[in-house]
Amino acid sequence: MLADYTRSFGNYIADPDGNKLLDVYAQIASIPLGYNNPALMKAAQSPEMVSAIINRPALGNFPSHDWANILETGILKVAPKGLSQVFTAMAGSDANETAYKAAFMWRRQRDRGGPAVEFTEDEMQSAMNNQAPGASQLSILSFKTAFHGRLFGSLSTTRSKPIHKLDIPAFDWPQATFPQLKYPLEDYAEENAKAEADSLAEVEDLIKNYHVPPCAVVVEPIQSEGGDNHASPEFFRGLRAITKKHGVLLIVDEVQTGVGATGRFWAHDHWGLPTPPDIVTFSKKAQTAGYYFGDPSLRPNRPYRQFNTWMGDPARALLFRAIIDEVQRLGLVERTAEVGDYLYGRLEALAAKYPGEFRNLRGKGMGTFIAFDSPRRDAFLAKAKRFGVNIGGSGQSAVRLRPMLIFEKQHADILLNAFEKIVTTWDQ
Amino acid sequence: MLADYTRSFGNYIADPDGNKLLDVYAQIASIPLGYNNPALMKAAQSPEMVSAIINRPALGNFPSHDWANILETGILKVAPKGLSQVFTAMAGSDANETAYKAAFMWRRQRDRGGPAVEFTEDEMQSAMNNQAPGASQLSILSFKTAFHGRLFGSLSTTRSKPIHKLDIPAFDWPQATFPQLKYPLEDYAEENAKAEADSLAEVEDLIKNYHVPPCAVVVEPIQSEGGDNHASPEFFRGLRAITKKHGVLLIVDEVQTGVGATGRFWAHDHWGLPTPPDIVTFSKKAQTAGYYFGDPSLRPNRPYRQFNTWMGDPARALLFRAIIDEVQRLGLVERTAEVGDYLYGRLEALAAKYPGEFRNLRGKGMGTFIAFDSPRRDAFLAKAKRFGVNIGGSGQSAVRLRPMLIFEKQHADILLNAFEKIVTTWDQ
Repeated sequence: MLADYTRSFGNYIADPDGNKLLDVYAQIASIPLGYNNPALMKAAQSPEMVSAIINRPALGNFPSHDWANILETGILKVAPKGLSQVFTAMAGSDANETAYKAAFMWRRQRDRGGPAVEFTEDEMQSAMNNQAPGASQLSILSFKTAFHGRLFGSLSTTRSKPIHKLDIPAFDWPQATFPQLKYPLEDYAEENAKAEADSLAEVEDLIKNYHVPPCAVVVEPIQSEGGDNHASPEFFRGLRAITKKHGVLLIVDEVQTGVGATGRFWAHDHWGLPTPPDIVTFSKKAQTAGYYFGDPSLRPNRPYRQFNTWMGDPARALLFRAIIDEVQRLGLVERTAEVGDYLYGRLEALAAKYPGEFRNLRGKGMGTFIAFDSPRRDAFLAKAKRFGVNIGGSGQSAVRLRPMLIFEKQHADILLNAFEKIVTTWDQ
Repeated sequence: MLADYTRSFGNYIADPDGNKLLDVYAQIASIPLGYNNPALMKAAQSPEMVSAIINRPALGNFPSHDWANILETGILKVAPKGLSQVFTAMAGSDANETAYKAAFMWRRQRDRGGPAVEFTEDEMQSAMNNQAPGASQLSILSFKTAFHGRLFGSLSTTRSKPIHKLDIPAFDWPQATFPQLKYPLEDYAEENAKAEADSLAEVEDLIKNYHVPPCAVVVEPIQSEGGDNHASPEFFRGLRAITKKHGVLLIVDEVQTGVGATGRFWAHDHWGLPTPPDIVTFSKKAQTAGYYFGDPSLRPNRPYRQFNTWMGDPARALLFRAIIDEVQRLGLVERTAEVGDYLYGRLEALAAKYPGEFRNLRGKGMGTFIAFDSPRRDAFLAKAKRFGVNIGGSGQSAVRLRPMLIFEKQHADILLNAFEKIVTTWDQ
């Protein structure tokens, strides 16, 4: 669909003819505060922003004198608990890949005996030939149906669909089964607990026995591209315990779940972890990208190890700062939690009324990060446009809701009304 | 160094104390028109730019109604001859990686029998397990001392320094020796021709015999991070001939050489190729990134194969358009060719006066893309700051000049004066 962003506003996206759709896809979950948000418009017109656009620095060498301040008053102000440092990037894929690189360097440094230990001549020479020991024979463990990006390292951890991976060389890295929960959860408590226990056992087995040993496990709080697959807080606490036990890092990929949509700023805030994840990656609604970390041994021990020309984009960091200010000023995370509860309740009622049409409703208590399966998903999405709604799918059969943080009850009502029309007019 | 970009202007970068340095490093060769360029400032304040910043689209799904026009009046207006299509990206690394992905898909599609041939069940299943045949067992051939980026695929083709590669898993991809020319070129014509012939023979041998067959060769017109290593137009024409002969793509990485600094808009314009490269990648001075291509069979045959959420950044595409307009309006490529010739001539004279200090001067006829080796390079770079110049190194011993396109003869004189001071005051 061609869009006219000059005519789009708030929750509504306009096409070039001026037709407006309630947008609960939001540029693949990446618009935080609606189109043409006045506060962001102001930030985009500020002298700081103009300077950031036209004087783009090589941040690793020549950061601006106020760069530390921009980070402190923005990106770091919403850092997950325990993770006080950040490495900035450009998008979700390179945020994950630089996080993976940090994990490989961390693990080899530990095995080597610490940051002061010199690289051997053999390591340096073999690295230049893409061979061990310089190129480490380690892996990142991910989950089946996961999505972590499309560059060569991130794609090796992505397991969403063949079309994402076909023909592209991949690393021989391990994958564990993500628990496939049955709904409604309360009817399948025992079965679901077993699925989660089995998954954790598989993770532990792969950590101990996979022939390319994992130095990190990467996981999404909700598998988003893979079909909105959830797991319980217990599952994630179990994952934290297993990774701790075996000295493997836990990387939480919050590219799609982060920045408020689940009713907490970070989705992993729902888990009640006893110790934080080692690394949390972000992008999309942050409008910038990168990874947070806490442990100083995740800082590279030498210059130019974790480096690139731009290392992020100050213009986008300024925008994220303005987003954070608005989110906090208006209490949008809390409001999203409330609106999400309302929407979920109404969807439950709709699913009870049309049980075949709204299956496996999921995302209760997770803000507006809600999904269900449709028996004719692609037709559902196409038809939604006819009834004024722009909406996306994921996985094989999921309809995923990804409203912006300014989505209110009135918009939920419009959405629900459209849904009912869709499923009662299949023959028209 | 901390920089104050509000006080920087034109060729001069300022620190927070207001001290100004003539900047011939230019944010690792990525500032095209100087700091606080008035024309770019105007573009950055335009309503289009503000909209692009705050309404960032998922370009693959919801391009703005004027996106095609922005490409046609900007990025595509300077497309290399024969390459009429572009895939946009964020930075040099992902520009190269998406180009590599296009190469893998192209080659497998050809082997499979064309775009209409379906993937086999075996391919789809094995791709999900990161195994052949779905994950192709093909490679990208690069050159020793090359630099193509730092993500997992691009880093596998980067062969600059161990510190860039240590501890990071890498693909078992081949590398050929880049010709190591001796200077002055006219004194070593025979030797250099042999080095180039040997390199081409090695490339051909690797294409025919490497155990992970290359589907593409990637090469920089001038190896930039690797130490400003040049090769002759004949060498590159030979490379084009060999890749054509064996049905292997030629990817020219113009991330650092593109956009005018060599005195042509694209450095490969110097080669006089009979047929264009298959793919040309760009970033840095373009302030955006991506790859150009011509052959329609390099377009993915299905949706969502070459895809990601943002697929570039319209804000940066608008900026590149404004850069192109200024470059053309002021004839900056032609001027850079002239200023470069002047600078090179003066450096030749300086090298004749201080032969030990300016070794292997190179880049004749290549605009301001000039380098030399210094016997005490790191001290040279540090001392340059004392004499008012910000300058970068590359490889083991090169001092590389990367002035902006607004660098004029008067700046060349200032630079040369500083150089002479540096080498005549080592003991002070």
